[in-house]
Amino acid sequence: MSSTYPKGRITLREVGLRDGLQMVRTFPSTRAKQEWLTREHAAGVRHFEIGSFLPPARFPQFADIREIAALASRLGVFSTALALNERGAGDAIATSVDEIVVVVSATEEHSQANMRRSRVAAVELLRQTRQMADDAEDPPLVSVGISMAFGCSIAGNVAPDEVLRIAGDCIEAGADVICLADTVGYAAPRQVGDLTAKAVKLCGDALPVAVHLHDTRGLGIANAAASLDAGAQLLDGSLGGLGGCPFAPGATGNVVFEDLVFLCERMGFPTGIDIEALCAVREILTAEMPLEPVYGALARSGPPRHIAWSAV
Amino acid sequence: MSSTYPKGRITLREVGLRDGLQMVRTFPSTRAKQEWLTREHAAGVRHFEIGSFLPPARFPQFADIREIAALASRLGVFSTALALNERGAGDAIATSVDEIVVVVSATEEHSQANMRRSRVAAVELLRQTRQMADDAEDPPLVSVGISMAFGCSIAGNVAPDEVLRIAGDCIEAGADVICLADTVGYAAPRQVGDLTAKAVKLCGDALPVAVHLHDTRGLGIANAAASLDAGAQLLDGSLGGLGGCPFAPGATGNVVFEDLVFLCERMGFPTGIDIEALCAVREILTAEMPLEPVYGALARSGPPRHIAWSAV
Repeated sequence: MSSTYPKGRITLREVGLRDGLQMVRTFPSTRAKQEWLTREHAAGVRHFEIGSFLPPARFPQFADIREIAALASRLGVFSTALALNERGAGDAIATSVDEIVVVVSATEEHSQANMRRSRVAAVELLRQTRQMADDAEDPPLVSVGISMAFGCSIAGNVAPDEVLRIAGDCIEAGADVICLADTVGYAAPRQVGDLTAKAVKLCGDALPVAVHLHDTRGLGIANAAASLDAGAQLLDGSLGGLGGCPFAPGATGNVVFEDLVFLCERMGFPTGIDIEALCAVREILTAEMPLEPVYGALARSGPPRHIAWSAV
Repeated sequence: MSSTYPKGRITLREVGLRDGLQMVRTFPSTRAKQEWLTREHAAGVRHFEIGSFLPPARFPQFADIREIAALASRLGVFSTALALNERGAGDAIATSVDEIVVVVSATEEHSQANMRRSRVAAVELLRQTRQMADDAEDPPLVSVGISMAFGCSIAGNVAPDEVLRIAGDCIEAGADVICLADTVGYAAPRQVGDLTAKAVKLCGDALPVAVHLHDTRGLGIANAAASLDAGAQLLDGSLGGLGGCPFAPGATGNVVFEDLVFLCERMGFPTGIDIEALCAVREILTAEMPLEPVYGALARSGPPRHIAWSAV
């Protein structure tokens, strides 16, 4: 645990290969995904969400997840994958994936609509996944993503105390990481800072708090800055801001990973990532998915040339 | 003064008609500018930077500034204009413009390269403009924009103490507002928060602190959030993020005004602006300046439909 998300530094996770591909019309070939992973590894990225364990017939974009997991293992990067049910959890544990994420909704309405199960049942899946993982030879981490943590596109406003209550249940069920997810891009900086600080207090020294943000309404990087100020240790982003949301049509995707790297460096958190080499990987996205817009300012402007901006 | 930038609330200023047009290849007709101003006024925007007093032969985009100033006056909105020399200041004072901005560079290198004068001479222009304004029948405010306040594309890093020293000189020379400008998009949230807080302390209750941000590297809204947390009272933005920078080729422009409105509302600062009516004004930009990219997330996604997001 301590070696995967080391205390006292920020970890950035590239989720383009999972959340970025969740809804795309076309998706990269396995070979292109392998190049994406390999080139980002060469640029210094060490944590990736690599896909979901879902039926390949319905989600062909993740049919090659075992090959991607094997490459991640060979490269020595830390790989996370999503499991939405018991079968997915079992499939994930049978691979070399380093961390399995189970999703628990912050609202009962979204839980029922999105996953056809109650929040209590989702926490039970987390507990079961934890037990399955612990029975494995090389147990992966088991984490929880609390979706709609900053507002819900079905239930509306979400009380921070409700999110913290669910986080407490997830800790009790054995979660290794608590991830607060702004699934539909409703979050704002003070709200993110407040909830992150409370989650950090709840998790204490035992568990890192992660924050998963979408840039739907332009506040993604501002929310990331607020979460960093409040003690978040792990932040998600996707290359080029890839990845929409089924509950927010027309919305932009995850917070732009390369802009997030720049933010961290400029806030004093070294990332170890070569930002220009990272930006160059965007050419894979535009070549493989010409219909998908790519976002981000840093790739357009380049880093500042006349000031010291790196945190190293 | 107290009626123009009232204490205890945030003022947002739309600078698209000035900074947004400083570098464009094509520019709107006078009639389109008038529609832009009129429709934003109808959407609730009350503060505009409307242009520069510059030679029309070299800056034809501002040749109609007197007509725009007259319309601003008729609408009852507060108008700001830039004056880069004594002639410009005199021309501005002869109109109904409510505020004249004089620019002082944070670095001697940029001052010489950009304005062919020393910083001391720029502060003297501010003092002279102040005196000219005070001699007028209906004195406008005289403000200072401290350019390159967060880093310089010529001199590199800029020490906060140096910016504060210049701000002090400008207060002594009679400035009504101190505006910290991230001219080339080098600023980062903690840096903005730190310098803004120090400037607010320096200005005390006497003067408001303004912050002028560019979104060159994706941190514009995050920097705006940091400045709001630190007590900035007046923030600039441009519709659609219009406006590049001569010192940062290929860079995006000012922070996106409509995203800034959304940020303020979500941070608890009521703006009085109808954000959807504001977004609709973007059609003037795309019709009049088809070559200029327009930016911004809020116009694409719309405001959240399922949560209370307005600060009112």
